[in-house]
Amino acid sequence: MTTAPLSPAPAATRQVIKFDAPLPLDSGQSLAPFSLAVTTYGTLNAERSNAILICHALTGDQYVAEKHPITGREGWWNLLIGPGKVIDPAKYFIICSNVLGGCMGSTGPLEIDPATGKPYAIHFPVITINDMVRAQARLIDHFGIDTLFAVVGGSMGGMQVLSWAAHYPERVFAALPIATSYRHSAQNIAFHEVGRQAIMADPDWRNGDYPDAGCVPARGLSVARMAAHITYLSEPALHRKFGRSLQDRSAVTFGFDADFQVESYLRYQARPSWIGSTPIPTSISRARWIISISPPSSARCQKPLRAVRRASACSPSPPTGCSPPRKAGRWCML
Amino acid sequence: MTTAPLSPAPAATRQVIKFDAPLPLDSGQSLAPFSLAVTTYGTLNAERSNAILICHALTGDQYVAEKHPITGREGWWNLLIGPGKVIDPAKYFIICSNVLGGCMGSTGPLEIDPATGKPYAIHFPVITINDMVRAQARLIDHFGIDTLFAVVGGSMGGMQVLSWAAHYPERVFAALPIATSYRHSAQNIAFHEVGRQAIMADPDWRNGDYPDAGCVPARGLSVARMAAHITYLSEPALHRKFGRSLQDRSAVTFGFDADFQVESYLRYQARPSWIGSTPIPTSISRARWIISISPPSSARCQKPLRAVRRASACSPSPPTGCSPPRKAGRWCML
Repeated sequence: MTTAPLSPAPAATRQVIKFDAPLPLDSGQSLAPFSLAVTTYGTLNAERSNAILICHALTGDQYVAEKHPITGREGWWNLLIGPGKVIDPAKYFIICSNVLGGCMGSTGPLEIDPATGKPYAIHFPVITINDMVRAQARLIDHFGIDTLFAVVGGSMGGMQVLSWAAHYPERVFAALPIATSYRHSAQNIAFHEVGRQAIMADPDWRNGDYPDAGCVPARGLSVARMAAHITYLSEPALHRKFGRSLQDRSAVTFGFDADFQVESYLRYQARPSWIGSTPIPTSISRARWIISISPPSSARCQKPLRAVRRASACSPSPPTGCSPPRKAGRWCML
Repeated sequence: MTTAPLSPAPAATRQVIKFDAPLPLDSGQSLAPFSLAVTTYGTLNAERSNAILICHALTGDQYVAEKHPITGREGWWNLLIGPGKVIDPAKYFIICSNVLGGCMGSTGPLEIDPATGKPYAIHFPVITINDMVRAQARLIDHFGIDTLFAVVGGSMGGMQVLSWAAHYPERVFAALPIATSYRHSAQNIAFHEVGRQAIMADPDWRNGDYPDAGCVPARGLSVARMAAHITYLSEPALHRKFGRSLQDRSAVTFGFDADFQVESYLRYQARPSWIGSTPIPTSISRARWIISISPPSSARCQKPLRAVRRASACSPSPPTGCSPPRKAGRWCML
């Protein structure tokens, strides 16, 4: 894969948009008011036909093409989004919002519950993929957009893309779900249970009321993050990348050091400085989404896939002034 | 698979055998004195040719064919070992010892370090598979056995079998490694790193000196045990067994309950009563073995497999009075 040349980050517009009308959730509860923190790049054209919605993954947020204000890391999709790149703000109006419950500015466990005047914390409703998408639809309404030119995302972002295609097929011209699934397997569910239990085993979890106690279950979060990172590469890929190679040494040390490269990689991903500088409720709420990525009924699980096939079969004319992204083929290789 | 009929547990002889001569370890350290806790069934014949050594897995111990004195669970290989079963004490002298470092009576982190008068705890040397087997060879010497009729074991027990075949090929007539490998993959290493970090993240770990502090890192151990249980079934098997089935309910509860059967299974395996009644140092020391299942050099890693092929090619005559187990084919299906 050729690395895209480095170029200046696109000019970004950041805003937090508040919605007063209650948002019904899959759980039967509703949220009101709620806010979404949004970054946009480029300009919506007169026909409102050039909008691309980027859906982020479990570990992502709205800082898709610029330096992250907390971690200092580059935008997570710098490779694709920017001047002269596949998704070019000169051509498209690019929208990326922090998902509902994401806590990087969108309403989530760290926000104040108007009913109590305290952070929602553990009492924040369990959010599903469909809930995230229902909130995003409100955002699209806010921008006056009837039909998105594309909805794009990988992993959990890809699940949102499938939900868009299933529930709002008439509002999506092209759906690009990447490296995703319409449901979690038993192993996926198991991994997330381990992650949640690691967080809850930390005494600083305080039964979920850690914000009030002024502490952070950082050790549990580190372990959860390490477990999650096992799943971000397939077993063969993990072996290709690390094998049994040692980390900066020629022999094992027969101790508890990270002798193997893969151990060092996991520790790096879970390093305290990273955990400490990340809004913890983000991860906490992540743990909550997973429980209901899709309903357990197989019939309902199939719905998004049927919708994707239908969208593909209908194939409306491209919106005025737009053409399919020139290098769309590359997206599927990511 | 047909379940073997229930039959009385075979008569067991339990002993703890102490060895005074130092045991050299792969780490370069040595242990002296050291003890192995051993259970035997049946009688060694006059030719000393009917001995079968059973090697236990990470979560096993020497209670292979009888009720466990602490957990109350049935012997972990009741199906195979007992009167009228594949490995019959009427025919074979069956030996199963708690591995070195295992802490069910064999020398391990809970034992008193003669140099300090306090439990070894974190200061117990890191033990490798080869170390376990080197200690078992002393045990076989103790019984006056030149050649074992068979060495049998699954998972980590199978790794010991491979080590026996590699390092003592002249002392093993038949080696039966089951569901095992001669080395850990990157993913295996990663899983064990997560388990260790979960234990060490527990404040009751006390930097490894928890026995002196009179506490047990039980929460960390629970999480480590849950992570390990993800690996005990392949992904397709996990999905066949649990799928996305719900646990005693018809819909998800949108909370932190174990809604899915696989979540309930993991919680059951890590239940506090089980963790609390298990000698914790066993698990702690387990965490230590894993780091060096085999040396990282691929050339050295291949040695056990070459030895197994060689043992298979040489095929010495069966020891007097012995024949291969009648249903040996079943072993490979376990």
